[in-house]
Amino acid sequence: MDWSALPSTSWVCVEMKAVPWNPADMNSVQGTYAILSQSHFSPKRTVAGSSGIGVVSEMTASKDNRFAVGDWVTVAQPGLGTMRSSVWAPASSWIKISRGSELFEKHGDGISTIFQLGGTALRMLRDFQVLRPGDCVIQNAGNSGVGWMASQLAAAHDVSMVSLVRRGTRSAEKEDLCDQASLQDFRRELQLVSHRPRVLALNAVGGDSAGKLVKLLDRHGTLVTYGGMSMKPLSISAGHLIFQDIKVVGYWNSRWMLQHSLSQQQAMTDELVDL
Amino acid sequence: MDWSALPSTSWVCVEMKAVPWNPADMNSVQGTYAILSQSHFSPKRTVAGSSGIGVVSEMTASKDNRFAVGDWVTVAQPGLGTMRSSVWAPASSWIKISRGSELFEKHGDGISTIFQLGGTALRMLRDFQVLRPGDCVIQNAGNSGVGWMASQLAAAHDVSMVSLVRRGTRSAEKEDLCDQASLQDFRRELQLVSHRPRVLALNAVGGDSAGKLVKLLDRHGTLVTYGGMSMKPLSISAGHLIFQDIKVVGYWNSRWMLQHSLSQQQAMTDELVDL
Repeated sequence: MDWSALPSTSWVCVEMKAVPWNPADMNSVQGTYAILSQSHFSPKRTVAGSSGIGVVSEMTASKDNRFAVGDWVTVAQPGLGTMRSSVWAPASSWIKISRGSELFEKHGDGISTIFQLGGTALRMLRDFQVLRPGDCVIQNAGNSGVGWMASQLAAAHDVSMVSLVRRGTRSAEKEDLCDQASLQDFRRELQLVSHRPRVLALNAVGGDSAGKLVKLLDRHGTLVTYGGMSMKPLSISAGHLIFQDIKVVGYWNSRWMLQHSLSQQQAMTDELVDL
Repeated sequence: MDWSALPSTSWVCVEMKAVPWNPADMNSVQGTYAILSQSHFSPKRTVAGSSGIGVVSEMTASKDNRFAVGDWVTVAQPGLGTMRSSVWAPASSWIKISRGSELFEKHGDGISTIFQLGGTALRMLRDFQVLRPGDCVIQNAGNSGVGWMASQLAAAHDVSMVSLVRRGTRSAEKEDLCDQASLQDFRRELQLVSHRPRVLALNAVGGDSAGKLVKLLDRHGTLVTYGGMSMKPLSISAGHLIFQDIKVVGYWNSRWMLQHSLSQQQAMTDELVDL
């Protein structure tokens, strides 16, 4: 390490323990994502990976360093390039995971996904509509990482989740938490919660699937898009925008991270750990 | 007139002078509009017409009546059924037009359109984005009534308007006020105002046309839909919602009228008269 090249800010080296491979990482490698993996701090090479968890192994001296060697951390910086054994980056690129060791032992590699995917699910459930106990949220991509996190978060707040999935199979574990249905069953499942307000829909597919969600929203509802896995544009009826006052918006976790302070990111990470 | 059937509220009879025929009226007759013409106060028959101007010819006695015989008025009530020679309705269904006689003499029948179409244009320009002098608004249906009103309102506030129209012909009168371009010229026209922020787009067409507007908006911009003349759903790229933070919403003048007080409607009518 060429220490003289480091700026005066405190830097932290993290030994990566688990790095998830998300659709966004795939798109980034394909060159179709909005930002490329930038490896901000190693400009001569590009490294994939935008999230993950690890353990602090080394750091530069600083009075205000929030970290100690051995701390578990996750990523606070989009496009950090986490797919390497260790990552040197400014302290501001990291968020501490309280009880990280315990979580990793209990849940294994999978725990690395909850900070980005869980954060996406949490923000979408919280930032676009006020959800009250008894409300119903509908989504496609119910078996995706975010969809699955959203189902769990909804269940924890007494909000019903009905998920449109490609294949109607479901595990007993998931059945307890949410209703999942392939297209032909989706409306029937919705009938079961027809007395509940449907104010929010989460879309990661696009195309007609997004249009179907819009048609099933109540008046003044919101469709939040966080992915476009079908690679097709959303097909939205003008009538639903005009007469039902439906709003169609997007959520991008990287923007949320860039627009929010480290303490806000830390608070959300703590909340996800506690769930 | 069976006076005994009238409720105690003050009622006003208006001799209609000019009633516009809008696309929404056509859709209403076709049965494809969100509300049918209801002729609220003549339940045994249905009469078309949701806007128009007229002169107060008669009214029931009331201390708080805002009107006098001879006043010019326009409609404050969706689906009133204005396509008849005179309309009896509660006073709350009408809004006074100051200098109505003068406007009608100067502009003729056309003045009847400005309260609904101008109101739609004004609300869309004002309620979804803060427009600053120098900003640029883009729209399709630039030759429609609302599109044409929006162009004039934008020009009055030093906001550029670039309109996508089906045929690129334009009158000298319109050329002074806004840039209009058929599809092949649209991007070129936009180049001329490329230094201006494009924060708002108005869509009355749907389909790919709406998608094109979205692609040309700046980050954090808003697409407002007030019509779907192509009868095709809007085709919206997921990437623009997610990465550019574009919002897609709808505007419906009837909802605005129902959600706002008579004094707010009166204030907007006065503003449109003064333009």
